[in-house]
Amino acid sequence: MKLVPLGDRVVLRQLVAEETTKSGIVLPGSAQEKPQQAEVIAVGPGGVVDGKEVTMQVTAGQKVIYSKYAGTEVKLDGTEYIIVKQNDILAVVE
Amino acid sequence: MKLVPLGDRVVLRQLVAEETTKSGIVLPGSAQEKPQQAEVIAVGPGGVVDGKEVTMQVTAGQKVIYSKYAGTEVKLDGTEYIIVKQNDILAVVE
Amino acid sequence: MKLVPLGDRVVLRQLVAEETTKSGIVLPGSAQEKPQQAEVIAVGPGGVVDGKEVTMQVTAGQKVIYSKYAGTEVKLDGTEYIIVKQNDILAVVE
Amino acid sequence: MKLVPLGDRVVLRQLVAEETTKSGIVLPGSAQEKPQQAEVIAVGPGGVVDGKEVTMQVTAGQKVIYSKYAGTEVKLDGTEYIIVKQNDILAVVE
Amino acid sequence: MKLVPLGDRVVLRQLVAEETTKSGIVLPGSAQEKPQQAEVIAVGPGGVVDGKEVTMQVTAGQKVIYSKYAGTEVKLDGTEYIIVKQNDILAVVE
Amino acid sequence: MKLVPLGDRVVLRQLVAEETTKSGIVLPGSAQEKPQQAEVIAVGPGGVVDGKEVTMQVTAGQKVIYSKYAGTEVKLDGTEYIIVKQNDILAVVE
Amino acid sequence: MKLVPLGDRVVLRQLVAEETTKSGIVLPGSAQEKPQQAEVIAVGPGGVVDGKEVTMQVTAGQKVIYSKYAGTEVKLDGTEYIIVKQNDILAVVE
Repeated sequence: MKLVPLGDRVVLRQLVAEETTKSGIVLPGSAQEKPQQAEVIAVGPGGVVDGKEVTMQVTAGQKVIYSKYAGTEVKLDGTEYIIVKQNDILAVVE
Repeated sequence: MKLVPLGDRVVLRQLVAEETTKSGIVLPGSAQEKPQQAEVIAVGPGGVVDGKEVTMQVTAGQKVIYSKYAGTEVKLDGTEYIIVKQNDILAVVE
Repeated sequence: MKLVPLGDRVVLRQLVAEETTKSGIVLPGSAQEKPQQAEVIAVGPGGVVDGKEVTMQVTAGQKVIYSKYAGTEVKLDGTEYIIVKQNDILAVVE
Repeated sequence: MKLVPLGDRVVLRQLVAEETTKSGIVLPGSAQEKPQQAEVIAVGPGGVVDGKEVTMQVTAGQKVIYSKYAGTEVKLDGTEYIIVKQNDILAVVE
Repeated sequence: MKLVPLGDRVVLRQLVAEETTKSGIVLPGSAQEKPQQAEVIAVGPGGVVDGKEVTMQVTAGQKVIYSKYAGTEVKLDGTEYIIVKQNDILAVVE
Repeated sequence: MKLVPLGDRVVLRQLVAEETTKSGIVLPGSAQEKPQQAEVIAVGPGGVVDGKEVTMQVTAGQKVIYSKYAGTEVKLDGTEYIIVKQNDILAVVE
Repeated sequence: MKLVPLGDRVVLRQLVAEETTKSGIVLPGSAQEKPQQAEVIAVGPGGVVDGKEVTMQVTAGQKVIYSKYAGTEVKLDGTEYIIVKQNDILAVVE
């Protein structure tokens, strides 16, 4: 089984980097965002999303930093994935 | 009796997958979203919804992951359905 | 006396279906939406509503599922009606 | 003295209908909307309001149902008026 | 010194009408709006405000009803003024 | 060192007018806006900001009334500045 | 490893200026924004972001004042970065 994201959605798999959790990230406000590194697993087709044309700019295999605030965790076949909108991906790590 | 969704609405029937509830999904923030697998039962015609052209991208019979946050549960003839907007469907499971 | 709805408003009369209230509908979040079956009594003319062209897609006599969250109850001549925007109607029951 | 409403504003005078208050209207959510019957006293010119073209669809003398949620009460020469946007008028009572 | 409002702002001076405060105005919701009579002192040039073309429709010297909810009080040379957006002016009193 | 504002931002320096704080300004609601007089120090270039064309209408040296609600205080070389969007400037004092 | 920001995102590195924290910045409201000086490390390509054309106006190496309210802190190879949208950069310090 595989996840095929719709619209501007991107399927991510979090990288198990203990350093990241050790880094003492403190986020402002009450919203508990947890920026994280993840690998891009699948990318939606883009197109018109909520009345706006979206061009996808990430590709499977890239390592990215995302804001987990609006993401949704999904477990499939024992693996945990995170589905985010491309707009929740902040940067590519090269 | 059957449900014929309007606009960009999609009628789903939740798949009774105990694994999903065992997966220990923890969601960020106070909003208790429960991402879930469901089968697409009926799909609205799309068209102009809230001033924006929406093209439907799912079809009846597909297995999808949706964000239950904005969905509405409806019981008809003893069966429970969930009516969501297409935008609340995150990915198709293939 | 009769109610003639404006714009994209629709006048509904709730169907007294005890099954519906027995179904144990549990809605997510703090917003207490009560999806319900109702009969369409009168339909507004549509047209430009809040700057967006709306085409009416329901007709009087149809049985519909609506989200009561944004609706307004009105009593006229001893009968209770609910006035909703067409967008609050989720599906037609056929 | 008279009130000349601006833009898409409409001046209403509430009808003293005790039946309405006896009807046990229960509104959902914390927002305490009180739908009411009122007579249209004066109607604004419409035109471009908040960047959107608005055509006025009610006329003075009509009896209407409005959602008092966003309305503003004004007392002028001992008479109480309610000033609402046309969009807060749900239906005309004929 | 005088106040020259920008964009769609209007400078008002509240009329000291004790009757208004005696009128027992009760406003819905938690937002404590205080509709009031005021004299228009100065009117901004209008034009494109927040991406929308605004035409000014009030003129200095008019007596208006405004919703004080979004207004800002300013004291200049011992006189108190209220600066509102034209959209917060509900009606002209003639 | 000097501050060069971006887009529709304006750099202000508050005028130390004790009269203003003595004026007993009472603001509506829970948002504690403090309207104040300030001198315009630097003005951004305007242009397309958040998808909307903004033309700057204030110039350095002008004395303005602004709503401090959305402003941000910055200290540079021992001087305190306030950076606001032009839209937070209510009026010019002439 | 380096961070390549997407869309209108900008990667910043905070300047360790103790003076800034000594400056007694008091911010209005409950939102605890901490305006700060930072160096621009990397700038996204701009383009259409959320349906709006964005032109990037800062360049790597510039010293800027930003509003940390909406920013996200990321640690990479032991260095802390802040990723903001260009719109959260208030001014360039020259």
